[in-house]
Amino acid sequence: MSAPATQPSPASPSSSGTLSYEQAGVRYELIDPLKVAAQRAAAATGTHLATHGFTEVAASRGESAYVVDVGPFHLASIVECLGSKVLVADAMKALTGRSFYAAIAQDTIAMAINDLVTVGATPLVVQAYWAAGGSEWFEDHERAQALVAGWKVACDRCRVAWGGGETPALAGIVEGGRIDLAASCTGIVNPKERLSLGEHLAPGDAIVLLASSGIHANGLSLARKLAERLPRGYLTEVAPGCSYGEALLAPTTLYSPVTEALWAAGVRVHYAANITGHGWRKLLRHPGRFTYRIHTLPPVPPVLEFVAREAGHDAEQAYGTLNMGAGFGLFVPAAQAARTVEVAAACGVPAWVAGGVHDGPKRLLIEPLSLQFDADALTLR
Amino acid sequence: MSAPATQPSPASPSSSGTLSYEQAGVRYELIDPLKVAAQRAAAATGTHLATHGFTEVAASRGESAYVVDVGPFHLASIVECLGSKVLVADAMKALTGRSFYAAIAQDTIAMAINDLVTVGATPLVVQAYWAAGGSEWFEDHERAQALVAGWKVACDRCRVAWGGGETPALAGIVEGGRIDLAASCTGIVNPKERLSLGEHLAPGDAIVLLASSGIHANGLSLARKLAERLPRGYLTEVAPGCSYGEALLAPTTLYSPVTEALWAAGVRVHYAANITGHGWRKLLRHPGRFTYRIHTLPPVPPVLEFVAREAGHDAEQAYGTLNMGAGFGLFVPAAQAARTVEVAAACGVPAWVAGGVHDGPKRLLIEPLSLQFDADALTLR
Repeated sequence: MSAPATQPSPASPSSSGTLSYEQAGVRYELIDPLKVAAQRAAAATGTHLATHGFTEVAASRGESAYVVDVGPFHLASIVECLGSKVLVADAMKALTGRSFYAAIAQDTIAMAINDLVTVGATPLVVQAYWAAGGSEWFEDHERAQALVAGWKVACDRCRVAWGGGETPALAGIVEGGRIDLAASCTGIVNPKERLSLGEHLAPGDAIVLLASSGIHANGLSLARKLAERLPRGYLTEVAPGCSYGEALLAPTTLYSPVTEALWAAGVRVHYAANITGHGWRKLLRHPGRFTYRIHTLPPVPPVLEFVAREAGHDAEQAYGTLNMGAGFGLFVPAAQAARTVEVAAACGVPAWVAGGVHDGPKRLLIEPLSLQFDADALTLR
Repeated sequence: MSAPATQPSPASPSSSGTLSYEQAGVRYELIDPLKVAAQRAAAATGTHLATHGFTEVAASRGESAYVVDVGPFHLASIVECLGSKVLVADAMKALTGRSFYAAIAQDTIAMAINDLVTVGATPLVVQAYWAAGGSEWFEDHERAQALVAGWKVACDRCRVAWGGGETPALAGIVEGGRIDLAASCTGIVNPKERLSLGEHLAPGDAIVLLASSGIHANGLSLARKLAERLPRGYLTEVAPGCSYGEALLAPTTLYSPVTEALWAAGVRVHYAANITGHGWRKLLRHPGRFTYRIHTLPPVPPVLEFVAREAGHDAEQAYGTLNMGAGFGLFVPAAQAARTVEVAAACGVPAWVAGGVHDGPKRLLIEPLSLQFDADALTLR
């Protein structure tokens, strides 16, 4: 049960030109009390595992996936939702006639798998949750087949078994003509020393950032609001020959091939952060008290530069909201940082030794931009 | 990826008084092609497990949960959705001011857990998927807290750890004021010989039926349509002092305490069927060629009698659509049938030795009602 971050106070009141995440329709203050209550109730259930002879890995509470020690290895599980990216796919279909459902199928799986691998798990099984706004959704066979095909390809890339799933027709709950896409994923941490909940994170470790493919599946509420303000909407060019809508729909990078290859190559990941909602503030996720210094920035994908500029975001808002080119953060021993970059590149994912872990108060320093996020910029527990 | 059953052809055209499941808005013929494509694509991904040193338990394809042999034990996983029962809870809140969200929280967990245990798994971890139609859904704190509290109590009853989950606000996808409730569940089959995929099912085995608490979470589209035709709607009395809406919202029985107790008591379950959509036709789920004879019927809960009567269903339609008092079917060695009933009763779940497995063509004979469902009454693979 991941709770949202506390949003940083804007330095000045929003002008009509700027657009904050709250203005884009996400009101965390309403959801927070439920999340806190749910987290508390959930935490109290961990002891049930003892009746089956197992134990909760307590450090996984508040992390991206829940981990149970089942004896010979750890079990990790998660459920994740695509969110509102599906609305962009639907809008682009209406505008261009093209189906982007294969792409958003990959996004959905990425939401689950990229979270699951942060704890050191190998994803084994994905279940599909496709809740349509009525039986009629399935009448568009091309769209439905694209969803199936994209889902399959993403499973193939992650070498995960697609176990099955649920495809309810929920007229009256899901809006007519829409579909809610989510995925659950189960994996194992095997051997157990692969667990990367941060026990070994220490000053001197390097931070390696893995490239994102674009906006991934976070920041879409903001991106959609911006489309409403653009004269040509999703058809606005953000790069030569590439529309805003198309750029938004670049599928999320799947990071499990990288984490699997790193283990095989002998790289020992100390901690990992999936950079989704709250942007680079996710690099503050580890509960410990460290200063994270970033000295190298990955290139910013044109679509993210465009979103930040159109929303009137300063660097703090942009890096505190969007992934800005870094989809995943790995905290590894400094001696293995260069190898980490090589292994990621061999998997087709550009990577950079971007910074390091230091003694000091809990904060993230993005030095090339003179940015600082303090401990209270991210409250996930 | 469970596919829907082929609906039996009605014996006569529906009169204005009768209401079939298709008329209630579920059009399986539109969803079927997607499901078939998804099942095929999913089946082709099972071989990925070999790259991690594991194997799919192939017999679990087409069953209620997907099973992987991970060495020391089997891993089972599933995602399931509550469906439209939430609309009944919302309607009853509007009519009575009472929140039924604790009850439907249990229903949601039951949907996942009751399916998971059919394969012989012990449920270990549940993840919550609560997708609201916007942040505003969470403003009703009483409702939100009831959801959390009911979820917790159901986890406690099943001795399962609530690992976390996802609570997205999906304005534009989920309807305003609504929530889509789903749950994923991961468990293990331990020891492996507890696997109950039906390998040992044989003529001579007994069929033990476990009592349902009412409609559970299937048949609600039909039940809601009926409410529209009733002058007093959900406030119609179905039993003295009990309204239709209240009766519909009796929470689904959780069967994992029974299956856990049966294993502890030395009862060897050969096969199990969660009697959900398609009613008693689910007793035909096993792929083998057997005749199932039912000689004893459990009492029919008043709300199901009411639904069947108001829908104008004959016995074939009623038993082929609703659970009619039997929420779960266990196929056990005849010598252990009486013990099975005792163990279930000790868990607070009435049970009956209701019939047996026989040589013969694949069919279900409900002898007290002179009913017969043939093999083609249920097509799940």
